Amino acid sequence: MNFKKRSHSCGQLSEKNIGETITLNGWVHVRRDLGSLIFIDLRDRWGITQLVAEPDVNEKVAEKANELRQEYCIWASGTVRQREKPNLDMPTGQIEIVIEDLGIINRSELPPFEISGDKNISEELKLKYRYLDLRRPKMQDYMAVRNKLSQITHRYFEQNDFLEIETPVLMKSTPEGARDFLVPSRLNKGKFYALPQSPQIFKQILMMSGFERYMQIVKCFRDEDLRSDRQPEFTQIDVEMSFVNQDDILAMTEGFISQVWSEILDYKTPETFTRLTYHEAMERFGSDKPDQRFDWELQNLNEIVSESNFKVFQDVLNLEGSVVALNAKDCARYSRKQIDNLTEFAKKYGAKGLAWIKWTSDGEVKSPIAKFLSESELENIKLKVNAENGDLVLISSDTWTRSHTILGALRLEIAKNEGIFDTIKGDYHFLWIVDFPMFEADPESGQSHAMHHPFTAPHGGDLERFMQDDKDIRSVSHDLVINGAEVAGGSMRIHQSDTQRQMFSALGMSEEDARDKFGFLLEALKYGTPPHGGIAFGLDRLVMILCGTDNIRDVIAFPKTTSGTSLMDESPGNVDVEQLKELGLMPLPEKQ
Amino acid sequence: MNFKKRSHSCGQLSEKNIGETITLNGWVHVRRDLGSLIFIDLRDRWGITQLVAEPDVNEKVAEKANELRQEYCIWASGTVRQREKPNLDMPTGQIEIVIEDLGIINRSELPPFEISGDKNISEELKLKYRYLDLRRPKMQDYMAVRNKLSQITHRYFEQNDFLEIETPVLMKSTPEGARDFLVPSRLNKGKFYALPQSPQIFKQILMMSGFERYMQIVKCFRDEDLRSDRQPEFTQIDVEMSFVNQDDILAMTEGFISQVWSEILDYKTPETFTRLTYHEAMERFGSDKPDQRFDWELQNLNEIVSESNFKVFQDVLNLEGSVVALNAKDCARYSRKQIDNLTEFAKKYGAKGLAWIKWTSDGEVKSPIAKFLSESELENIKLKVNAENGDLVLISSDTWTRSHTILGALRLEIAKNEGIFDTIKGDYHFLWIVDFPMFEADPESGQSHAMHHPFTAPHGGDLERFMQDDKDIRSVSHDLVINGAEVAGGSMRIHQSDTQRQMFSALGMSEEDARDKFGFLLEALKYGTPPHGGIAFGLDRLVMILCGTDNIRDVIAFPKTTSGTSLMDESPGNVDVEQLKELGLMPLPEKQ
Repeated sequence: MNFKKRSHSCGQLSEKNIGETITLNGWVHVRRDLGSLIFIDLRDRWGITQLVAEPDVNEKVAEKANELRQEYCIWASGTVRQREKPNLDMPTGQIEIVIEDLGIINRSELPPFEISGDKNISEELKLKYRYLDLRRPKMQDYMAVRNKLSQITHRYFEQNDFLEIETPVLMKSTPEGARDFLVPSRLNKGKFYALPQSPQIFKQILMMSGFERYMQIVKCFRDEDLRSDRQPEFTQIDVEMSFVNQDDILAMTEGFISQVWSEILDYKTPETFTRLTYHEAMERFGSDKPDQRFDWELQNLNEIVSESNFKVFQDVLNLEGSVVALNAKDCARYSRKQIDNLTEFAKKYGAKGLAWIKWTSDGEVKSPIAKFLSESELENIKLKVNAENGDLVLISSDTWTRSHTILGALRLEIAKNEGIFDTIKGDYHFLWIVDFPMFEADPESGQSHAMHHPFTAPHGGDLERFMQDDKDIRSVSHDLVINGAEVAGGSMRIHQSDTQRQMFSALGMSEEDARDKFGFLLEALKYGTPPHGGIAFGLDRLVMILCGTDNIRDVIAFPKTTSGTSLMDESPGNVDVEQLKELGLMPLPEKQ
Repeated sequence: MNFKKRSHSCGQLSEKNIGETITLNGWVHVRRDLGSLIFIDLRDRWGITQLVAEPDVNEKVAEKANELRQEYCIWASGTVRQREKPNLDMPTGQIEIVIEDLGIINRSELPPFEISGDKNISEELKLKYRYLDLRRPKMQDYMAVRNKLSQITHRYFEQNDFLEIETPVLMKSTPEGARDFLVPSRLNKGKFYALPQSPQIFKQILMMSGFERYMQIVKCFRDEDLRSDRQPEFTQIDVEMSFVNQDDILAMTEGFISQVWSEILDYKTPETFTRLTYHEAMERFGSDKPDQRFDWELQNLNEIVSESNFKVFQDVLNLEGSVVALNAKDCARYSRKQIDNLTEFAKKYGAKGLAWIKWTSDGEVKSPIAKFLSESELENIKLKVNAENGDLVLISSDTWTRSHTILGALRLEIAKNEGIFDTIKGDYHFLWIVDFPMFEADPESGQSHAMHHPFTAPHGGDLERFMQDDKDIRSVSHDLVINGAEVAGGSMRIHQSDTQRQMFSALGMSEEDARDKFGFLLEALKYGTPPHGGIAFGLDRLVMILCGTDNIRDVIAFPKTTSGTSLMDESPGNVDVEQLKELGLMPLPEKQ
């Protein structure tokens, strides 16, 4: 071995070690040559320790220290001493090591960016040299948090008697919702495996197999056009339980989240989390994942404006739509241009326009729609939304879903502009959304889709209507929302073969189609399937919240770009025509 | 909820609970109707409890109990009482439950095989109805052992300060050795991802990223023609460490295996495991994964027969081959036919023939080659192999590798025939094989392949010869062998860019090819890469040994057949031509 092994890590030494002779291994983080002194910040996974070489005292060591450059991999032995000027920002800032011996283990070329810095490094450069990016202390911390979350997960579910069981990665393609990644089979030419979008069916099969409590940390895959916060492969904490009801699943989850927040952030979560139905969340916050760290609730104006002369409102009410208002506190100062920008923003969510009323600081009403409203209507609106002078009230009138969604989006947008999020940093709010509608209609085709997935159990009270093909029913479903981000979703599942059959039919699937895709599931349901349900957490998203970053690429060691490529190893890559041939495939001619 | 939730599990009740009123949930394992009494064995994940309904005492309950059939999912409440005839084979065999109330949660069709039995179920039927097969207590145990192994793994490596880091499933195809599974990219038409055969390069990149101690339980994939003990997807415990030497890796592994054997089997492993070099293992046992639970060592006869008149031996010695002998204890009784069978067996390993010498129980020598050997040569052979009257000595003369491999295979075959394995059941032998040759030549092309993989570090003493392109060198490599099965393999890795370059060149890779496939690795090696090495365990194989099963499908929840299909969900399946088109692919016309 061409180096001396460490006696300590670079994060470990303190005043207690003063006088000891120690050896460290690591990388040259920063090197400062002051002539009479050479300082080296030596970095390993556990921290940074300052080394010092003194040319006047030990010429040979100083010469070697002079050779060192950024990111050289070295070993160094020496004596721990008190620093003259302690650095209180560093855990090891009270001490330094006087180098007595030193060796270069491996040299480094000049890195394309500084490991010790964080400024102006392009995302592209970071991804290409990911191995250098990952050396940055911030990235090391993120990966450590991710690891800690995984370990807590394994431990919590083990303690609760769950079995971790691996489901297949090579499975059958059953395109529902997103697109599958396909894997051509060589041994069965012309056939394809699919990578799992989630192990949903397998975890239910595991309940039918009698395992009762299943957990898995598992990679899932979606071949979607990627947005900046999506990755083609992502990690799920997948949980399923038998002989339970929804309350059991929520309680198990609350215990888990509480453990995670306590161990990683030393934060005490509430004993139980607030629950809102989907309907209530939409009505009050215009979102099925509301950020409740601030109030700003929507108000329904249907009754107040029911007699108004404003045709736009009347038309909406005649079509059983909703007139909804949001009080943007203190925003009466907004200029016409600022309000126009909000209108443009609202249009992205389908708004045709946006009505507004300002109560200026001296109590004056300014509004393009004031002329259509009576004094008392205006006064009632002001009361209803609890507006004071200086407030701006935004009004959306549209279908129930759209009017609420538009104001829900504006609520967040304005809160962002007003700096509300800065004031609530470090706050956490945990919220259950339950009782989602079972179906949502595709706006184009009108075809019903399952809002969660086709294995979700209908709400007990709605079961009869469901079996009679009524689509306007709720499901026994639950999403966990933290700070306005959906971090987990689940439901009770259908555990009766004919209910499941009815569901496939409600989704417009022919019996043949259902048998072809899910025949084994329908068959499995016939052998004494227990009542079961579960939940799946987006692990990447949980880590993002725990680390306080908005960039999903910060929490994945080797992420893909939005075009699905890895800039480091340049995947995906080319393959030989021969390799394709073996799979019974050829490239599609360009013009077909 | 249409059932009463359990107060206890079916594995939990004992005499301590007598007199208590309890509720159980589970499946009807066995139902015995004796007329005056109906017995139900109720099963859940934690065990089996006997329920009893007494028609004379509670008619209504008995009527319901009469409805029950195998695998009905039920709840039952009642009082715990002492059994008249305890069943000491069952943990709950001292008690039974007198049913007071009972409900069917879900009925079951008659299963295609009995969950309570284990006889004559065809593998095909078991795989098709995997959810029923998995209900069998044996399979439940296997999955529980697998889970336990995973949890111990997470815990052990966490306690040793490893970080669990996920590497990508969608990576670049770099065909080395086995075939990759390919995943066509839709966003980058004409390009392909590959599923990892192992995260080898990524774990080394993680060392270059400064994580120092990495662990992952990870799915790996090989598109091979499947043998009965292979699966297209398998699970690896992947480990890598920086600033270490081989001893550190072996010690970390020994600690891990010791923990596993202690927690799962309550078995104390040796403090350190025996180490054999590859060369010694081959010479003594004719295998690089010898089963050392029994002796039967090979002996080299080169010197003894160096002057013999037997032309076959002389030819082999002239070509620097080996004449090797194995003493099959007590096998002089083998008939001519039995010996012919052994010869046929040997031919599968490349033998042209097999020489043998019997010393019969009365000391007579019987051998087709005796006439070529002098009295003293025979006597020396007898001494060398420690033969006694009644023993059969088999002699293989061929190249060094082949003569040893042939006798190594015969050693196992005869031990099997002689029932040796029955006598050593429950024994465990842990063995390191180290210092493998760096290269092996392809018997057909003569091209050198890396025996481990192209990132394995050359043995320090052989480095200079390696850099001068000498192929006859050893690597710093290690395999862990338990009871003759290779359960883990690893090595120290090359951590210098030019050594790695030399390796690619030694493997016949052009500079361009090396850059194309591994350019990013060669680049990464330039930035102060630490010395590093690691090991990867076959998790499935470890579970097989811990469970004492030879069938890999016993330890994987949803395995594939040897033709790579899943009989339950019928994957791989067909996909639409449209789906292919989106990927820029079409089927290869049949006759091309």
